[in-house]
Amino acid sequence: MPQLPLPPGSTLGVLGGGQLGRMLAQAASRLGFDVVILDPEPDCPAARVARAQITAPYDDPDALQALGRLCDVVTFEFENVPAASVETLAEAGALVAPGPTALSVAQDRVDEKTYLNAVGAPTVAFAAVTTLDDLTAAVETLGLPALLKTRREGYDGKGQVWIRDAADAPSAFDAIGRLPAVLEAAAVFQRELSVIAARGRDGVVAVYPLGENVHRNGVLKTTTAPAAVDSATQERAEQIAAAVLDGLDYVGVMGIELFDMGPDAEGKPELLVNEVAPRVHNTGHWTQDGCVCDQFEQHVRAVVGWPLGPTEAHARIEMTNLLGDEVADWPALAAEPKARLHLYGKRQARAGRKMAHVNRIL
Amino acid sequence: MPQLPLPPGSTLGVLGGGQLGRMLAQAASRLGFDVVILDPEPDCPAARVARAQITAPYDDPDALQALGRLCDVVTFEFENVPAASVETLAEAGALVAPGPTALSVAQDRVDEKTYLNAVGAPTVAFAAVTTLDDLTAAVETLGLPALLKTRREGYDGKGQVWIRDAADAPSAFDAIGRLPAVLEAAAVFQRELSVIAARGRDGVVAVYPLGENVHRNGVLKTTTAPAAVDSATQERAEQIAAAVLDGLDYVGVMGIELFDMGPDAEGKPELLVNEVAPRVHNTGHWTQDGCVCDQFEQHVRAVVGWPLGPTEAHARIEMTNLLGDEVADWPALAAEPKARLHLYGKRQARAGRKMAHVNRIL
Repeated sequence: MPQLPLPPGSTLGVLGGGQLGRMLAQAASRLGFDVVILDPEPDCPAARVARAQITAPYDDPDALQALGRLCDVVTFEFENVPAASVETLAEAGALVAPGPTALSVAQDRVDEKTYLNAVGAPTVAFAAVTTLDDLTAAVETLGLPALLKTRREGYDGKGQVWIRDAADAPSAFDAIGRLPAVLEAAAVFQRELSVIAARGRDGVVAVYPLGENVHRNGVLKTTTAPAAVDSATQERAEQIAAAVLDGLDYVGVMGIELFDMGPDAEGKPELLVNEVAPRVHNTGHWTQDGCVCDQFEQHVRAVVGWPLGPTEAHARIEMTNLLGDEVADWPALAAEPKARLHLYGKRQARAGRKMAHVNRIL
Repeated sequence: MPQLPLPPGSTLGVLGGGQLGRMLAQAASRLGFDVVILDPEPDCPAARVARAQITAPYDDPDALQALGRLCDVVTFEFENVPAASVETLAEAGALVAPGPTALSVAQDRVDEKTYLNAVGAPTVAFAAVTTLDDLTAAVETLGLPALLKTRREGYDGKGQVWIRDAADAPSAFDAIGRLPAVLEAAAVFQRELSVIAARGRDGVVAVYPLGENVHRNGVLKTTTAPAAVDSATQERAEQIAAAVLDGLDYVGVMGIELFDMGPDAEGKPELLVNEVAPRVHNTGHWTQDGCVCDQFEQHVRAVVGWPLGPTEAHARIEMTNLLGDEVADWPALAAEPKARLHLYGKRQARAGRKMAHVNRIL
């Protein structure tokens, strides 16, 4: 195993070559690291800013062996990394971060919520669902409306369906393919927040200011950060983040989506964790133009064993995702004096596909 | 020839794969462009953050043909690009910026100073030197001390020698290999400034705040920007920059080194142009952490025909070059909360080699 901290000139591997892998590669190269991407899509967005790409499925043992041998440390742009892949990478001699525990917790929505509640990070009420009988019982217990989600996979609103009437439970279960699932009580929240937190190999936790998120059709549209919250709310978010990261002995950046329920009976801020992502996160893109050390550099610093960077905001930012054809607005955006464009180099602007984002300095 | 403005997904070629090419590639990729590097050194720093490298000498016709065919627009990280190379690139179908006039002017110190004076950008007094007799006459005219430089090539203090005594003229001429040269009168300046300016394909000129430079052994050590100058000095620098760029119908970023001579007899700021570089410039690295649109993105915007970005500073920055072994300080620099490190990915820290820079937020 390589010695930490890794010096510049070391090689970072990234599983996944989409926009998150691309921005990780850009940040790593700024710190003098070489980057190798593993992605099944040839000439993927991240590969075009990295030293090399291994083009293979994420569970290809030979490809993982090769990646592990080439790289001093390997990380991920997504959480659905097979546990066997992590083992192969470690066997080939690479450090792997975040670790297998964080991945396995984040891959299963029931395990995730169970873990979160155990470390004092409250969530909405939920129930595991394996059969239609489980679902009927859970609807009874949690009340309606409630949100049915597959336990595994699914993102950006995929693999989930609202149940508003008990009679719709069977069709909802069909809609998610009768897969193992979780039923979540509806949260009557005031707004959606998220917090980007990092934990270094030395156990230090650094937390960015909260962002406020607006979703459209289940997909993030904007994040405004720092969010207009009182200091008690920011402190509560930092407390939750530290508990979640410490409990996993986590290394790297994590995105934590929160429901702001408003003040509780005692007047204290009540935040529920909606979900966590053990990786850099779309709601943290504002840090690229609002902070000295953005979430991508922060993640690289953590996994290579460098000290974490500062997390204060020097500007207030509104980050807007450009989906599908919206990227065609680039000429107007390029002419906006306080807008900073980040384009992902994707060849085809398929409907709903994340193509770019713009950070507007407020 | 491709139509302007070039849309994201177009390909930018860069002649030269050192740190300037690397930072250009990083900026271009952020705007969604693919980048191809031409450099004779395999696996050069810029290639490791670009889509591809063509490994060949800068005057290799086949390599230039290939680059011109692959790329919609081609630019340079250095000014000593052979005119024939530019022609080959254009014949292969690529736009080339900056243009051949700017390159030829910047490649010859006598042509450069003659051009500058012609557009109202004053320089020190100078004389062209071809023979030892020329040199003796020039020493007589300009007085001593005076600086003898080769007309072509040479940077970071190479190819130049001070003459402090008329008897040393022959040995000084020998020292620069009796090449065609220029003798420059010594400037008794108060400080060294520089200004980074850009001109778009629409003729718009955008000028960054002045930086103040400190050199050590002929190599830039620090730039502090915005420099502590009055508004008349900044305006004079902007006037000079506009004259120099407009006169060349320039497209791209130019670095202009200035001697601040203090107020003239009328109390107006007197700035002399020391030299110009038709490319992104070491004294503009502070813009990466001091401006929304840094000099690298600005250069890309200009050459692809996008509108220029804003040039105001949102922070005051001290940029320090890390030469040779100084890069070994990275652990301490990584722990400084207001320092942003930019490492170039060079494999060997040879003495005096530019390995990295750090931008400290003041």
